[in-house]
Amino acid sequence: MFFHDPTLAKTFNIFQILDYLGTFVFAISGALAAMDKKFDPFGVVILALVTAVGGGTLRDVMIGRTPVGWMQDINYALIILAGAVVAMSCRPYLVYFRKTMFLFDAMGLGLFTIIGVELGMGAGLHPIICILLGTLSAAFGGVIRDILCNQIPLIFEKEIYASLSIIGGVIFIFLNKTSLSLDAIYVITSALVIVLRILAVRYRWVLPKWYVGK
Amino acid sequence: MFFHDPTLAKTFNIFQILDYLGTFVFAISGALAAMDKKFDPFGVVILALVTAVGGGTLRDVMIGRTPVGWMQDINYALIILAGAVVAMSCRPYLVYFRKTMFLFDAMGLGLFTIIGVELGMGAGLHPIICILLGTLSAAFGGVIRDILCNQIPLIFEKEIYASLSIIGGVIFIFLNKTSLSLDAIYVITSALVIVLRILAVRYRWVLPKWYVGK
Amino acid sequence: MFFHDPTLAKTFNIFQILDYLGTFVFAISGALAAMDKKFDPFGVVILALVTAVGGGTLRDVMIGRTPVGWMQDINYALIILAGAVVAMSCRPYLVYFRKTMFLFDAMGLGLFTIIGVELGMGAGLHPIICILLGTLSAAFGGVIRDILCNQIPLIFEKEIYASLSIIGGVIFIFLNKTSLSLDAIYVITSALVIVLRILAVRYRWVLPKWYVGK
Repeated sequence: MFFHDPTLAKTFNIFQILDYLGTFVFAISGALAAMDKKFDPFGVVILALVTAVGGGTLRDVMIGRTPVGWMQDINYALIILAGAVVAMSCRPYLVYFRKTMFLFDAMGLGLFTIIGVELGMGAGLHPIICILLGTLSAAFGGVIRDILCNQIPLIFEKEIYASLSIIGGVIFIFLNKTSLSLDAIYVITSALVIVLRILAVRYRWVLPKWYVGK
Repeated sequence: MFFHDPTLAKTFNIFQILDYLGTFVFAISGALAAMDKKFDPFGVVILALVTAVGGGTLRDVMIGRTPVGWMQDINYALIILAGAVVAMSCRPYLVYFRKTMFLFDAMGLGLFTIIGVELGMGAGLHPIICILLGTLSAAFGGVIRDILCNQIPLIFEKEIYASLSIIGGVIFIFLNKTSLSLDAIYVITSALVIVLRILAVRYRWVLPKWYVGK
Repeated sequence: MFFHDPTLAKTFNIFQILDYLGTFVFAISGALAAMDKKFDPFGVVILALVTAVGGGTLRDVMIGRTPVGWMQDINYALIILAGAVVAMSCRPYLVYFRKTMFLFDAMGLGLFTIIGVELGMGAGLHPIICILLGTLSAAFGGVIRDILCNQIPLIFEKEIYASLSIIGGVIFIFLNKTSLSLDAIYVITSALVIVLRILAVRYRWVLPKWYVGK
């Protein structure tokens, strides 16, 4: 819906670029996990792919938006391939870009959440379901990555990550009921997710596991 | 089809309640598995969700029924959240409800099978495919739960569980060709699955693995 | 598209038979993996099923071709059941058919790739996406098999397998722009994949992992 509003064309381009940047960083995260497991180059590329588009694929398939989004814009596949190649070629140097990548990843988390929530709203779903859909979009690529690496998904155990996606979704839905422009809502929601993510990592926020015995 | 028959409205409500009860118990089973693995509360809720709706999601996506069923009735999400909260808050006391939960779980197994078979029939699929679809619906939530916990799916190794879903599906298809009312068919099929499940656990029925060497 | 050309009816039957043979061998491969893990007969059948149809299911769901293909032709389910039964009954003798099975598996790899590419073209997708779709179709059944067995997917680590699917897809797309008949294209592409697969195994071709430290 929103994406076809011609007056948003310029703004949309900015968010499109952020979307691509997020995809690129998610792909690198998948490629790095694959290299840690000594996958061959084919495995590295596939893991970059599923990490970057796995969440969005699940989202699209669940709401019947097919062929799924990334299959209809060749840029995604090319960006993911580039991410995998960069990861395989420049692995030792990636450490210098850790903070940049962390920022793009947080941006991706916020943006993918918003896109998922919007698509859910477009499909006429309940706000709570929209938030769930946004969180699935943003976080399940990483879950599939960990499953394919035969590991317990990271986001289930440690760090505040996917929870921020839920918070972002709630804020987005709430702001959407105000008179703020969609641009402003996008910016505010994303900024908030990014700030919370930075705080979460810096101060090692974790969710309490009161039910786990000592 | 059947679900829109107005004369079935009253009966349907009863089965709707059983459906919710089954969902609740499946959610608790997912939450308990997550707590065993020391997932954080976010992980517990997500595992409750995928355990409860994973099978139905797979079923709906495979027959093109989108947005998938549970996304269109907010009650499911709320019931699952309640299940996760109950599991996290009352873990030590759940043991007293073991038998009740076992019964609801068996009921869910039977009912989810029937719903899957019916949806398959509505989509004009071959009876054997309908039975497979019913079994996927009923059993794959647990498979996804085990995969996310990085374990071999329980139902592939031990106990007669999913096999009862197949038996339930066969009986349902068979009774459907008789002149019995749909209500009666639902009740008979469910009851049979529950009884067989009780017997299977009490007498430790297992499928023979004749192909496994000593 | 191609499949409805009446003049291709005869040829189509030949490829249909190869499709069934590939399905049969994929099912056996899944069943063998399940027996190695000591799954019960139910688990063996389900693993045979997901190995044989998992890739095609993912493909169909992603392009919105539902109910997914194998659910609309009961032969697939019966062939897979037969594969599982043969594997459980004749396990010690299967070793004598290793080369035959290897050939059918390579044939399946080539054919499933081509079918995936064609379906992608029919959905109007970019050639690169079509190739990815073909590779997913051919290789992801094995990935799901390994995940359900709680193992790192074989094709990510060792052997040139899925990469051949990519090569097959590229050749198919390329030949499709020539004036060759579809039959010839099918035969050439499949033959090439089979020959490359034989060479890959005989000479132990592997993709270089230059990024893995010593």
